[in-house]
Amino acid sequence: MSDKDLRPSPVSATVDFDAVGSQHGFLRLPYSRDDSAWGSVMIPVTVIKNGTGPTVLLSGGNHGDEYEGPIALFDLARTLKAEDVKGRVIIVPAMNYPAFAAETRTSPIDKGNMNRSFPGRPDGTVTQKIADYFQRTLLPLADIVLDFHSGGKTLDFLPFCAAHILLDKEQEKKGFEFVEAFGAPYSMRMLEIDAVGMYDTAAEEMGKIFITTELGGGGTATARSAAIAKRGVMNVLKHAGVATGKIERQPTQWLDMPDGDCFIFSESAGLAEFAVDLGDAVKKGDVIARIYPVGRTGETPLELRSKMDGILTARHFPGLIKAGDCAAVIAQ
Amino acid sequence: MSDKDLRPSPVSATVDFDAVGSQHGFLRLPYSRDDSAWGSVMIPVTVIKNGTGPTVLLSGGNHGDEYEGPIALFDLARTLKAEDVKGRVIIVPAMNYPAFAAETRTSPIDKGNMNRSFPGRPDGTVTQKIADYFQRTLLPLADIVLDFHSGGKTLDFLPFCAAHILLDKEQEKKGFEFVEAFGAPYSMRMLEIDAVGMYDTAAEEMGKIFITTELGGGGTATARSAAIAKRGVMNVLKHAGVATGKIERQPTQWLDMPDGDCFIFSESAGLAEFAVDLGDAVKKGDVIARIYPVGRTGETPLELRSKMDGILTARHFPGLIKAGDCAAVIAQ
Amino acid sequence: MSDKDLRPSPVSATVDFDAVGSQHGFLRLPYSRDDSAWGSVMIPVTVIKNGTGPTVLLSGGNHGDEYEGPIALFDLARTLKAEDVKGRVIIVPAMNYPAFAAETRTSPIDKGNMNRSFPGRPDGTVTQKIADYFQRTLLPLADIVLDFHSGGKTLDFLPFCAAHILLDKEQEKKGFEFVEAFGAPYSMRMLEIDAVGMYDTAAEEMGKIFITTELGGGGTATARSAAIAKRGVMNVLKHAGVATGKIERQPTQWLDMPDGDCFIFSESAGLAEFAVDLGDAVKKGDVIARIYPVGRTGETPLELRSKMDGILTARHFPGLIKAGDCAAVIAQ
Amino acid sequence: MSDKDLRPSPVSATVDFDAVGSQHGFLRLPYSRDDSAWGSVMIPVTVIKNGTGPTVLLSGGNHGDEYEGPIALFDLARTLKAEDVKGRVIIVPAMNYPAFAAETRTSPIDKGNMNRSFPGRPDGTVTQKIADYFQRTLLPLADIVLDFHSGGKTLDFLPFCAAHILLDKEQEKKGFEFVEAFGAPYSMRMLEIDAVGMYDTAAEEMGKIFITTELGGGGTATARSAAIAKRGVMNVLKHAGVATGKIERQPTQWLDMPDGDCFIFSESAGLAEFAVDLGDAVKKGDVIARIYPVGRTGETPLELRSKMDGILTARHFPGLIKAGDCAAVIAQ
Amino acid sequence: MSDKDLRPSPVSATVDFDAVGSQHGFLRLPYSRDDSAWGSVMIPVTVIKNGTGPTVLLSGGNHGDEYEGPIALFDLARTLKAEDVKGRVIIVPAMNYPAFAAETRTSPIDKGNMNRSFPGRPDGTVTQKIADYFQRTLLPLADIVLDFHSGGKTLDFLPFCAAHILLDKEQEKKGFEFVEAFGAPYSMRMLEIDAVGMYDTAAEEMGKIFITTELGGGGTATARSAAIAKRGVMNVLKHAGVATGKIERQPTQWLDMPDGDCFIFSESAGLAEFAVDLGDAVKKGDVIARIYPVGRTGETPLELRSKMDGILTARHFPGLIKAGDCAAVIAQ
Amino acid sequence: MSDKDLRPSPVSATVDFDAVGSQHGFLRLPYSRDDSAWGSVMIPVTVIKNGTGPTVLLSGGNHGDEYEGPIALFDLARTLKAEDVKGRVIIVPAMNYPAFAAETRTSPIDKGNMNRSFPGRPDGTVTQKIADYFQRTLLPLADIVLDFHSGGKTLDFLPFCAAHILLDKEQEKKGFEFVEAFGAPYSMRMLEIDAVGMYDTAAEEMGKIFITTELGGGGTATARSAAIAKRGVMNVLKHAGVATGKIERQPTQWLDMPDGDCFIFSESAGLAEFAVDLGDAVKKGDVIARIYPVGRTGETPLELRSKMDGILTARHFPGLIKAGDCAAVIAQ
Repeated sequence: MSDKDLRPSPVSATVDFDAVGSQHGFLRLPYSRDDSAWGSVMIPVTVIKNGTGPTVLLSGGNHGDEYEGPIALFDLARTLKAEDVKGRVIIVPAMNYPAFAAETRTSPIDKGNMNRSFPGRPDGTVTQKIADYFQRTLLPLADIVLDFHSGGKTLDFLPFCAAHILLDKEQEKKGFEFVEAFGAPYSMRMLEIDAVGMYDTAAEEMGKIFITTELGGGGTATARSAAIAKRGVMNVLKHAGVATGKIERQPTQWLDMPDGDCFIFSESAGLAEFAVDLGDAVKKGDVIARIYPVGRTGETPLELRSKMDGILTARHFPGLIKAGDCAAVIAQ
Repeated sequence: MSDKDLRPSPVSATVDFDAVGSQHGFLRLPYSRDDSAWGSVMIPVTVIKNGTGPTVLLSGGNHGDEYEGPIALFDLARTLKAEDVKGRVIIVPAMNYPAFAAETRTSPIDKGNMNRSFPGRPDGTVTQKIADYFQRTLLPLADIVLDFHSGGKTLDFLPFCAAHILLDKEQEKKGFEFVEAFGAPYSMRMLEIDAVGMYDTAAEEMGKIFITTELGGGGTATARSAAIAKRGVMNVLKHAGVATGKIERQPTQWLDMPDGDCFIFSESAGLAEFAVDLGDAVKKGDVIARIYPVGRTGETPLELRSKMDGILTARHFPGLIKAGDCAAVIAQ
Repeated sequence: MSDKDLRPSPVSATVDFDAVGSQHGFLRLPYSRDDSAWGSVMIPVTVIKNGTGPTVLLSGGNHGDEYEGPIALFDLARTLKAEDVKGRVIIVPAMNYPAFAAETRTSPIDKGNMNRSFPGRPDGTVTQKIADYFQRTLLPLADIVLDFHSGGKTLDFLPFCAAHILLDKEQEKKGFEFVEAFGAPYSMRMLEIDAVGMYDTAAEEMGKIFITTELGGGGTATARSAAIAKRGVMNVLKHAGVATGKIERQPTQWLDMPDGDCFIFSESAGLAEFAVDLGDAVKKGDVIARIYPVGRTGETPLELRSKMDGILTARHFPGLIKAGDCAAVIAQ
Repeated sequence: MSDKDLRPSPVSATVDFDAVGSQHGFLRLPYSRDDSAWGSVMIPVTVIKNGTGPTVLLSGGNHGDEYEGPIALFDLARTLKAEDVKGRVIIVPAMNYPAFAAETRTSPIDKGNMNRSFPGRPDGTVTQKIADYFQRTLLPLADIVLDFHSGGKTLDFLPFCAAHILLDKEQEKKGFEFVEAFGAPYSMRMLEIDAVGMYDTAAEEMGKIFITTELGGGGTATARSAAIAKRGVMNVLKHAGVATGKIERQPTQWLDMPDGDCFIFSESAGLAEFAVDLGDAVKKGDVIARIYPVGRTGETPLELRSKMDGILTARHFPGLIKAGDCAAVIAQ
Repeated sequence: MSDKDLRPSPVSATVDFDAVGSQHGFLRLPYSRDDSAWGSVMIPVTVIKNGTGPTVLLSGGNHGDEYEGPIALFDLARTLKAEDVKGRVIIVPAMNYPAFAAETRTSPIDKGNMNRSFPGRPDGTVTQKIADYFQRTLLPLADIVLDFHSGGKTLDFLPFCAAHILLDKEQEKKGFEFVEAFGAPYSMRMLEIDAVGMYDTAAEEMGKIFITTELGGGGTATARSAAIAKRGVMNVLKHAGVATGKIERQPTQWLDMPDGDCFIFSESAGLAEFAVDLGDAVKKGDVIARIYPVGRTGETPLELRSKMDGILTARHFPGLIKAGDCAAVIAQ
Repeated sequence: MSDKDLRPSPVSATVDFDAVGSQHGFLRLPYSRDDSAWGSVMIPVTVIKNGTGPTVLLSGGNHGDEYEGPIALFDLARTLKAEDVKGRVIIVPAMNYPAFAAETRTSPIDKGNMNRSFPGRPDGTVTQKIADYFQRTLLPLADIVLDFHSGGKTLDFLPFCAAHILLDKEQEKKGFEFVEAFGAPYSMRMLEIDAVGMYDTAAEEMGKIFITTELGGGGTATARSAAIAKRGVMNVLKHAGVATGKIERQPTQWLDMPDGDCFIFSESAGLAEFAVDLGDAVKKGDVIARIYPVGRTGETPLELRSKMDGILTARHFPGLIKAGDCAAVIAQ
């Protein structure tokens, strides 16, 4: 057992995870800094417990600029009644709260990317301390974990719910059943190539059922994308038996991202003109985007082409693109 | 005559506006600063002149985070052949070039909002010097002016082309004919309440035909919105007789913004959940958006409601909203 | 009449200054910027009107890091009942709201020092626009004006209320009576040498009764200093006849600052050790502070000495001092 | 023995700690950076050695915005004569010199909180390298260690000297005797709950006598608080037998902070109005402070109440408070 | 007479310009800001007066990153004895002191370029207030003005002294005589095309003899370039009759910059490889520099060629160049 | 074998190091951040392979503000023909590309000093990931390594090529032969005292022949210094047998830096006047530079003197110096 396992988390919760009823409170993480010697990061949390049943751990704001999850979860925290619950629901609408408050993907405090910070450290950066608290305190309480993502300010996605292809096929099967229940317009079977540091991996390695989403992006949410998230989370609670009522089943289209050829990177910076929109079918060799050099007029744009047949599933969102940015993702 | 009228602009063009053929060059504006004592702002410009006909002045990037205009104009500058032109086309794809390069609405140099900087000053800030060059050099060369706008990073719009309601009804009529020719999905008759400092006003006061657009927003462009811009600018050139070929007519829906009740402001900061999407019909009293306080869970969101019947024409784009932000615009 | 007088203020109030009763609202100032194209500065305002009587205009946060005024005024806005008022009370607890929100003396938007920005400009910076609104809209409504100040983060003061020595001796006399009524531990007769740009001057030139305060400093407020402010503002309302009840009279010590010899500047930077505290009596030639060079140990500190007999009325607050900072003020 | 123990510190001293007499010099720490490829951090140090006696290690500026210690120590370094010393005095007036020079709690270079950086690392950040030098070079030289603290810019304290409750009761007893000798108005018996990374702990684990202080705060020092520090350090030297002369005994009030109920945190941000001042007695349930929301007038403030009887020993200093900040500490 | 002429300068001098002897002091300019409510900019000044003779006004640091002038003047201020002076010498080694302290061309406070800020304003920015003080207080005291310049961080120059071609040929002739006396390796006859806002122009319009220099650059000074400055300033004082002793005559090569073809601008950004060094002869059409695109290897560099025969007199200094930067100046 | 050795590098090359011919591509390092969720750092690389022979690994931009290396290598990458090569040449003109693009010594992303980051970490900061890629992928491919350095923005050097004194005298001898072949005006035998973290050490420990340079500085390159670099790299390729043709032999002067007395540090900040220039002979006790305090005129400058006879080999470049900066290096 490592040193850090022995050291307690500096985070304290103002809610009691074992108490029956609905509580709104905080995960309080002491954070001493120039503008507050004895300050803290305050992460809102709601826990709703009633009767007997599994624990569902719900999170948004793993990346701070993704909004469908926080909308669905701030709404759920306010509207879900304890008497309608069988088991326990733990809701953290903005997991990387400093990033969420700053409207940025990573934490403004330490530039920490929460989804590359697991298992975290109790004596690390603020982001690592939050990860450690999820790793050692919240994940062990959970049976099912739903972590909301969207594209953030710099990517846009077709709306999908996803689970990973896993070695434990029983665990994998349950995951895909939850994805099906979520009922997003698209569903994804993900094969993670580099899973180090991810919250997903941390949960899966504990044997939890873990599902996630990409529900749009650009640093906004629409009425339509928020509705997908709100319906999805209720469907998950119903499928888990924690909420009562019938699942609102929706047709979904399953997608695969077979290998690295899905990804199209730009080797040049410039102004991006997309030739296709999200959901459009593309053929191998089709122009996906043209990148105009902006230093002068009259120059020939760089053409980015698809390396496979499929549909445009994700794209770079901002109008300008930098060298090395992923311009597009094609899924099948 | 004021002092500044007598002082020449510090901007020099590396193109000759009177030469026949197609030229790509720069508007060079000396800009001495800490990291370049004898530096300059270089604004790309293309001028294409041939035969006899009017001058059309085309601009994008008046606000630096709006992309449909720059895409259409970098493309046009590269592809429009002098032999296909009758008259003159002056293309400035990124009018506030420092803002465009920084991906911001206003100039990173002086925070200048180009569209509130007219008539500019030859001895003012960088933004004011650019405005002054348009005011005293480029606008006098033009007969028709098309200035592209979109919502930028913080607003999203239904795609429309627009012209102003003017005292000179002949001028106004020609403007609306150009709007009709542009062929955006929506068209707008705008009554500007506070027109001080606008490029629009500067052009209109010289008697120029002036049209503008809002073609989307969020700091991006889609294949669809870029196509509207590209088709629109060609239609304008054809309608002006500067380009040959048949106008690609498209059905358009005319909109009005009658008064200040169109605008819905949020008095609180929070997480914005929109209840309707762009283009949706709304009734007076309908909830347009809910603003969740994000400091803790369990709080009641503020409801923003429409003050009139209409359709949702513009909305705040980022997931979080600040007190005082315009949340939505309803047009009729 | 100048141009700008003809141009209306861009500020709009969400309260009706002529309506009877108590209203809480905003002065909304449109402020287009990179992070909100159609954003606004929202300055909280309360207006309470009832019966017949004069109008008292109360403001805090003229400088954003001074807290006794905002505390007294947020409290008053919440607790003063319309039925207890005869006349009108207009309360702006944080006049330079952007500075107040940023905890800084000047506006983070334009570095504007509100008290050097009068009469303001409707087409100027954000700070100038707020000043213009006070100049042309709020001051004309008022009979008596109380503007709270303290030392802010970089100065500390003995608590006093003050009015200016004026050419109009009738106006001056009324001012000093209000100072006496305010009932701070100290009271000051101020002779302003450079009054250009001050809110004080703007009000006095319109013939208003104007009083101000310095109630402590260091960017904080104590229970004691907040109580002085709260009692003082109620005493002012009572003396004006706008609030009922008996004035809570307190003994006060009158002070004068006769000339520039009151001020002691440091010509060197260093660590400041004060030899006397606020309220201590000093003699001409006494050491007021020693300034230690901090680059190495063993150096002789610079001694700052009083140029007159008196009491230490204000001092530089931070532990380090910069060359050119005012270290101390001696009053008589 | 760990790797880093084997690696020498990069810090070199320009003084000889074994030489007799008084020397003023530097701890020089190489620090390569963009604005100086071969630059260094220079930490002023004075060493005074004479005759036979113990070594007293004196430090201020562990946190860079606390001033009583640096004032007392810059003064002492200049005025203490070698001939008046029996033993050795090592004076580092500004331990975290980069933080001291920047007027911030933590280092502007690496945001390092010196008092959470022990034992440090010779190959770590600048702050960790300084800690390592104290850990491996200076602390081993010392018998008695006095480390000055105050509240810094964001806290204010009753002036006290303190030592820790320790397992070694002999060591503990000597510590409290030094606290008594220091002669601050208040004296504290501290039970450190989370002592990881502290300089205190590093010294105590080596068996050194360690005392510390909190002598005020707010990022300033008064004549009164500086006098406490100056008298205290001389009393400590006399009690240690290093300086001659009689200890200036002062009455002191002993305080205890029994458990976490001493601390009152604010769960909301706002404007803080304290109802009591430092040193005031409070009862369990008393309102300590009211936190006003500042987004609009007319809102009800949050009331923060004491969880125990005691006296107000520390408080949040700035006028505004953030969610999660410690608002007050009650000691008994 | 304009308004601002009537308003006194806020700057006060701690020296008496009419007193005999040598005085070191400050020009103190009140500057209220967030980190010092009652702070000041302190500009060191030395005045040395003795006997009868003209007044020579000497300045360096007009641009804050140019060092030969400040070195010569800090040295002169310290070493010139009053008894060796006939007349008066006013020395301001760092005219734009905030820029000098920040090692930047322009002021860090307001980005003011001192040499484009004349005649200044007493109610303007800090830079404008300094300009106004020179305009209305110091220049009127002077007969001869020497203002030191070098290339600063972004330009490098052959070392020359210069005066302007003027309408008043008598004034012009005296200027060139002083340039000859200065004795730099090169001497320049300058024809200023855009003289608006320059200190030079302000002085010349008052009929003063005005000379200036460019003595190197890159943000440094060498032993050689500092020696040129030190010898030059003494030669000027001797030529003016203010200092005694024989002028150290040096051979000098006169240069002319006839028109805009002297200047070579880069239209692209990249890595600059110069083909010639300062002082090298070039022919029209010679490659002066190659600009490599740095985004990828294997690209063809842009070649910048001379538009005339001459010698390389100035060049862009940093290794990278931006679009619009002046790359080189060729003089004849 | 440690954990990190087992983890693959996240860097992928778009070139094939084993393919014959000349390829221009990138080392792509995924870098997720706020402004690009799926972004990358793109480091240009050229590999030229032909026939049989050793592999020479060439790098510039180890520090981002040193330009002779990048100039020589961007030029070489473009002009060296595969048919002229026997063996393999790997060219990375800007090793720490983010630093190079930002014109800074260290990385703007993580402040990483590349030459103190070896052996790097595949899960570390961006700079550590680049170091790890050189450590585990590129260095193993190489036989001879040439890493270009210059003084950067804050130091200036006599131009020399250098190799280290090594325990393996065979390896050392080959290194000095390559230094001799390089043919810089000066050559240096370096004894590294603290070699931890250096690229040099990493290469030498693998038994590679490693040579480096210092070719000037100040953040620029001259025609002369660039020519030294271009000739030197071709000479190295020729000496290695990878390029054909005769080595352009140049006379060189060998230098030694025997111990720490070579280095002269400034204990005070101020304006630096050098008394000698690079290449000048100095005697022990000679004044090398005078440091003027800049806070006021009339102060005595600090004199920095040589501790040995020798020649001035390096100096602090900027006009101002900070306490702790290395002012000069004397070599023999």
